[in-house]
Amino acid sequence: MQTMTVSKYLILRLKEIGIDDLFSVPGDFNLVFLDRVQDSGLINLIGDCNELNASYAADGYARVKGVGAIITTFGVGELSAVNGIAGSYSEMVPVVKITGTPNTKSQASGALLHHTLGNGDFRAFQKMFSHITVTNTTLLPHNAAAEIDRVLTECVQKVRPVYISLPTDVVDAEITVDMKPLNLALPANPEKTEAACVREIVNAVAKAKKPIIVADACAIRHHCEKELLELIEKTGLPYYTTPMGKAVIGEDHPQFRGIYVGSLSSPRVKEEVEGADLILSVGGLKSDFNTGSFSYRMDAEKTVEIHSDYTDVFYGTYKAVGMKYLLPKLAAAIPKREVQSINLSVELPKIDMKAMVPQAWFWNRMGKFFKPNDIVLAETGTSVFGCLNSHMPEGATFISQILWGSIGYTVGGCLGAAVAGQERRVILFVGDGSFQLTCQEVSVMIRLGLRPIIFLLNNNGYTIERLIHGVKRTYNDIDNWDFSKTLDYFGGAAGQDKIGFQGRANTAGEFEQVLKKVESHADKINFVEVMMDWLDAPENLVKQAEASAALNRS
Amino acid sequence: MQTMTVSKYLILRLKEIGIDDLFSVPGDFNLVFLDRVQDSGLINLIGDCNELNASYAADGYARVKGVGAIITTFGVGELSAVNGIAGSYSEMVPVVKITGTPNTKSQASGALLHHTLGNGDFRAFQKMFSHITVTNTTLLPHNAAAEIDRVLTECVQKVRPVYISLPTDVVDAEITVDMKPLNLALPANPEKTEAACVREIVNAVAKAKKPIIVADACAIRHHCEKELLELIEKTGLPYYTTPMGKAVIGEDHPQFRGIYVGSLSSPRVKEEVEGADLILSVGGLKSDFNTGSFSYRMDAEKTVEIHSDYTDVFYGTYKAVGMKYLLPKLAAAIPKREVQSINLSVELPKIDMKAMVPQAWFWNRMGKFFKPNDIVLAETGTSVFGCLNSHMPEGATFISQILWGSIGYTVGGCLGAAVAGQERRVILFVGDGSFQLTCQEVSVMIRLGLRPIIFLLNNNGYTIERLIHGVKRTYNDIDNWDFSKTLDYFGGAAGQDKIGFQGRANTAGEFEQVLKKVESHADKINFVEVMMDWLDAPENLVKQAEASAALNRS
Repeated sequence: MQTMTVSKYLILRLKEIGIDDLFSVPGDFNLVFLDRVQDSGLINLIGDCNELNASYAADGYARVKGVGAIITTFGVGELSAVNGIAGSYSEMVPVVKITGTPNTKSQASGALLHHTLGNGDFRAFQKMFSHITVTNTTLLPHNAAAEIDRVLTECVQKVRPVYISLPTDVVDAEITVDMKPLNLALPANPEKTEAACVREIVNAVAKAKKPIIVADACAIRHHCEKELLELIEKTGLPYYTTPMGKAVIGEDHPQFRGIYVGSLSSPRVKEEVEGADLILSVGGLKSDFNTGSFSYRMDAEKTVEIHSDYTDVFYGTYKAVGMKYLLPKLAAAIPKREVQSINLSVELPKIDMKAMVPQAWFWNRMGKFFKPNDIVLAETGTSVFGCLNSHMPEGATFISQILWGSIGYTVGGCLGAAVAGQERRVILFVGDGSFQLTCQEVSVMIRLGLRPIIFLLNNNGYTIERLIHGVKRTYNDIDNWDFSKTLDYFGGAAGQDKIGFQGRANTAGEFEQVLKKVESHADKINFVEVMMDWLDAPENLVKQAEASAALNRS
Repeated sequence: MQTMTVSKYLILRLKEIGIDDLFSVPGDFNLVFLDRVQDSGLINLIGDCNELNASYAADGYARVKGVGAIITTFGVGELSAVNGIAGSYSEMVPVVKITGTPNTKSQASGALLHHTLGNGDFRAFQKMFSHITVTNTTLLPHNAAAEIDRVLTECVQKVRPVYISLPTDVVDAEITVDMKPLNLALPANPEKTEAACVREIVNAVAKAKKPIIVADACAIRHHCEKELLELIEKTGLPYYTTPMGKAVIGEDHPQFRGIYVGSLSSPRVKEEVEGADLILSVGGLKSDFNTGSFSYRMDAEKTVEIHSDYTDVFYGTYKAVGMKYLLPKLAAAIPKREVQSINLSVELPKIDMKAMVPQAWFWNRMGKFFKPNDIVLAETGTSVFGCLNSHMPEGATFISQILWGSIGYTVGGCLGAAVAGQERRVILFVGDGSFQLTCQEVSVMIRLGLRPIIFLLNNNGYTIERLIHGVKRTYNDIDNWDFSKTLDYFGGAAGQDKIGFQGRANTAGEFEQVLKKVESHADKINFVEVMMDWLDAPENLVKQAEASAALNRS
């Protein structure tokens, strides 16, 4: 046992779970803690332009590094981060949300302080966060050590956000603590239940003529990429991913066969998945945009659903049998079949290089631009639907919000991913409409000397919205900023030496030239405005938009 | 009784309470309603860059026009507006928050749709808003007419935000309605209680040797400017305002004597207010920044507190006696005293016109720049404290967030104020730090051809934070964007003909030249970057920051 301040203990535990960087906006109720962070030398404090962007950055960081964190001030600060934290909850991303709150005396007396609702209620904001976090706490000297351990453990184990209120007068309070490491491991599966589950799955695979694996979001979110790869390679089974499972394993793997999205799948993939007589679904998440508007055909009678905390074998459920420990046992128990590879490489269509870049060419072209270990972010809308068609090489990370779908997310997310993966190349695809929500975070990327490649797809408005409803409605128009000067504007004079290429590609030919320039400025930030036709869209987006419009009308 | 769609009824009622413009960001769950708004020809639909800015715009609009409204999509959209709506709640501004939500069938079945938390809970966001609105509702065909009437009436009468959930399949549902006008008038004060209250106040004034009036926030929020003016003029009493009551009446009124902020007041004002033997406080709101950190000296034994829904005379309370109807009765009953005017005009200090603009000169200079009926917005931080020292002429509206204090608010607020007061001049003061949170809304001002004058005070960081804590801490630094190109960047090619003057003033001399240029471009938007020393601050801000730092430490 030893004595230290609450802030020191919190910093040590954040560091222990993997927080090397803390996204922040300063405010008078968090300033003292910011000092402690900076002076600790353990965690790097990153100032964001606003709290929404900071929350997106923490989410992007967590998707690369395993866990993220953000600190804001009370009320005005934290409430601007609500959408970002809700996104982390929805998409299952572990983010620690810390709020610097007024001192405990002011809270107890209900003082009429700035940044309050003026009604003496200091709990309202924490209650609001309770809907979008798995747990929350107010740190006080008597509970701080135990509460910090509890909420950080839940954050990591449940891969969802948690909320910590840190009053100004608690920051430097001295507490007695025990620094034994946190136990972040998941509890073991129940032994006999798991054994029975393994037996039944092994039998089912043995009987099946065409068994396949479909890997989905939760395999990534629960960090089971290695266990999944082992299962795939030891069984020799062909595997598919869903949109949210994309790039769980590099798509040049010889057993990879494509992306299954129900009726929006390619005809070959649809036939293969729906023709399989046994599907091992790993980490399934059946949201509308992940299933081609619920057009999946994975009947329970031929599907094994392996989730993070239970497993369904056909119509039966094995409670508390989770994928982390189940997958290695299946990998060991299922006999290997002969691998039957198919060639998935795509020829680029011939196009007019003097015309605008067409969607049908662009995404395949980008697949050839990607390198192993790239981090690729695709914004909700045209970008994410398009990028599903891009080949993701080994080690690549694909970041998008297919469930939550908050436009603007990827700009903040890009900052976070770039901080988390500083040795990796980071590539962002964002539309002109989405970029306008969160543009200012580019200035933080420049300040930090990060070197993402940002492709802004300028198709003159909210194309995904146009396809769903209101194709020519003015509300789907977007002001056409001087996008190709983005780095100059947000970088200012001090940023000039950190800027690589910035400019516009009006044609496919210009775009090819730009790609070369971008590659020759790999040590700096690059920003490319790609001009595209206002109604050109990836085919899968056109179909999804039709389905969404029908559902809204129904 | 007649038949019409829910959307038509909602549009008619919004129009009736004063909504001529609706701030919005499109999203697939609100698109059909956006069509109905545009096609109605009754309400102008304004697209914002993001939802936070839209919520700020609706607030700014409401402060000029009496009520504001914003529509977003479900989840991702509405949650980005939370901070703005909470600000409207805290600061008592009536804003109608409408959310386009998924169709009722999907909600009933808990479908796993995009923009949801993925847990089937479609009520979480509405519950979150229940903490920051006075009431909320989900419109369904059977309740829509009654509920619309109820929530809009509460919004107006309680001058606070309300929340309306509008499912996609309810928009065009046909309902039977009665279009008799809404009764928005406040209920009358209880007759006998009010009469007793008037008698006691009249007696108290008769006995007092030095009675004064102090006008505060709620006199403005509850739209009692005219009743207050009548009381002041019919009684002849000298009056003061608080920071949040600033400009409730033009400060060139002969009975005006200054701003009372407890220990942060000027010595004369402090002596006069604290030396009064009777204070008629109208609409008091005793928050920290409105009272010099609770350093008010307005003892109950000599103070009459007239509020929106009760009145305290010394230690006694007259329940349900509200200011709207009480003030005229007091004006009629209190005999007039001789007006004793003092000269409040300020000489500009002599300064070096070749040096940077000093704070001590700037705010008095701006007071001489202001014209009757100007709308002046001052951002939380240096600007609001400084602007309290600027003279506000007759008919001027002063907009700030002294209680909620969300930085970045005024940029969205400026958009809303400029839309609401298109015939008036709108002037915004915002710091470099605050501007970075919400900068993109400038593009909407340009698109709409609005013509605010934006003064960006560039003092290289969060000066208010530096004064409270961490004067040289890097977290109080701000990236120095190419601010003087702001209109070029956000306007793009299409915006060029809507841009007046944009540029930088490095010295006081340059600033005087710039003011002339700005006045010669009054028909367009103007943007002036004013360079100021990084630690120069208005004296009242320095004192407030010391008090806040002490409270955080206590």
